[in-house]
Amino acid sequence: MPLKVAFQGEIGAFSEEAALALFTGAEVVPCPSFEAVFEALEASRVDRAVVPIENSLHGSVHANYDLLREHEVHITGELQLRIRHHLMARKGTPLDEVRRVHSHPQALGQCRDFLRSRLPGAEAVPAYDTAGSAKMIAETDLPGEAAIASRRAAVEYGLTILAEGIESNHRNYTRFLALSREGRGGDDAPPGLEWKTSVVYAPRENLPGALFKSLAVFALRDIDLFKIESRPLVGSVGKYLFYLDLAGSTHDESVRRALDHLREISASVRILGSYPRGSTVG
Amino acid sequence: MPLKVAFQGEIGAFSEEAALALFTGAEVVPCPSFEAVFEALEASRVDRAVVPIENSLHGSVHANYDLLREHEVHITGELQLRIRHHLMARKGTPLDEVRRVHSHPQALGQCRDFLRSRLPGAEAVPAYDTAGSAKMIAETDLPGEAAIASRRAAVEYGLTILAEGIESNHRNYTRFLALSREGRGGDDAPPGLEWKTSVVYAPRENLPGALFKSLAVFALRDIDLFKIESRPLVGSVGKYLFYLDLAGSTHDESVRRALDHLREISASVRILGSYPRGSTVG
Repeated sequence: MPLKVAFQGEIGAFSEEAALALFTGAEVVPCPSFEAVFEALEASRVDRAVVPIENSLHGSVHANYDLLREHEVHITGELQLRIRHHLMARKGTPLDEVRRVHSHPQALGQCRDFLRSRLPGAEAVPAYDTAGSAKMIAETDLPGEAAIASRRAAVEYGLTILAEGIESNHRNYTRFLALSREGRGGDDAPPGLEWKTSVVYAPRENLPGALFKSLAVFALRDIDLFKIESRPLVGSVGKYLFYLDLAGSTHDESVRRALDHLREISASVRILGSYPRGSTVG
Repeated sequence: MPLKVAFQGEIGAFSEEAALALFTGAEVVPCPSFEAVFEALEASRVDRAVVPIENSLHGSVHANYDLLREHEVHITGELQLRIRHHLMARKGTPLDEVRRVHSHPQALGQCRDFLRSRLPGAEAVPAYDTAGSAKMIAETDLPGEAAIASRRAAVEYGLTILAEGIESNHRNYTRFLALSREGRGGDDAPPGLEWKTSVVYAPRENLPGALFKSLAVFALRDIDLFKIESRPLVGSVGKYLFYLDLAGSTHDESVRRALDHLREISASVRILGSYPRGSTVG
């Protein structure tokens, strides 16, 4: 039985690609929203889930940090996926006959330079998601319709790629997390892997004393940090949540001590999971 | 002559509302992209610009941090705008005759609960922006068309609001920055205002030593921090940019010394501006 892995979006979405890269041979389960992904996992309708947590151009996905705090799930892996956009159409549509280009507004924006220089007369039409726009033009029989989506979507919906990698900024990467109902034991760690631990915490007092002290907890133990982000809590002046990714696993003595120390000086600490540091794909 | 203030989007966009709240009586200049906003300001086609920099649900707008680093402009003010979404239609369209709801996918997502419970049969149609969808339905004569946008957009395009504040999460705020070609002098500070300074810097060495040391620069001088965010530089393993908002202005002796100290230990420091701490509107 293949693992069932939930993701948000249509077949052909970047999240599906991340899910298959993280879980080879999995049976992917499309969900309409991030909430639905977390609920499917928690209710055991799937075995694993994959969600985006940050993009190099657009930043952290706060909605998924919130869902991680609200649900009893654990991060068990990560992956950086390069986001490449391709222009695609039904077979027999040449580039110079494209009249309308469908995609998510973010993708249309990322490909604006290409559209302006190569298809100045074409109309950019916003859609819910990139893969959904590919599916839609595959099903229509209007001439001159194209979509911007992933290579995977082109294959899935039988479309021909008219232009590859048409995004202006090629440093477009999304980091995805693999989620499970149980955390990873230290004993399932293949030797030699570098581990990472993700934490969300709320300091007990106001910044900056609290932030400085909470980082001291790690600096004094020579624990590397990969990410630090403050998120102001709206409606609570001077109250913050911090997202932190650190080197090591909760099975390391020094990480465990540092996290105990962090709890001493924080109003709340939630350990989201320890997992092997991920690779970059695509 | 009123000040000319550039913003991204259509008339009726939340950015226009922020521009008018920051610059009363200004002549607003809509621009198709954030790049166009920065270019209009730098080329003196406008006197000021207003751009979003972070949203309480969706995080920092990295694109605008990048544009701030690339252009010779200064932050001179800020504002938190509450984002409230309203359902609107042409006069004479009752709620139960709405068949299609147009808006930006983010707004449609934020109002999903309302749409499901109150308009289960209606189709959600993605659009480029909220104000643009209001403009579009005002111009069509198809029956049953509605849009989700701001109150300002309803007024601008002569639409009737059918339902108010239909977003699921009411803690939806966007922080906007006011930009100018010149920074603010310390002498134009009305007395009693709290000032804030925004900085982007790249540490000289890897985390965590560098992050810890750079925060020590402020903590040891009792300078409060309002925001800290690491942004990994894609393609440069272990290299980061940090966004920092701190209390005080570059006209304060202690802030000036702290920033000198930060330069000593950083590969690069860019001071984006000192400005009075903003209020929350809406």
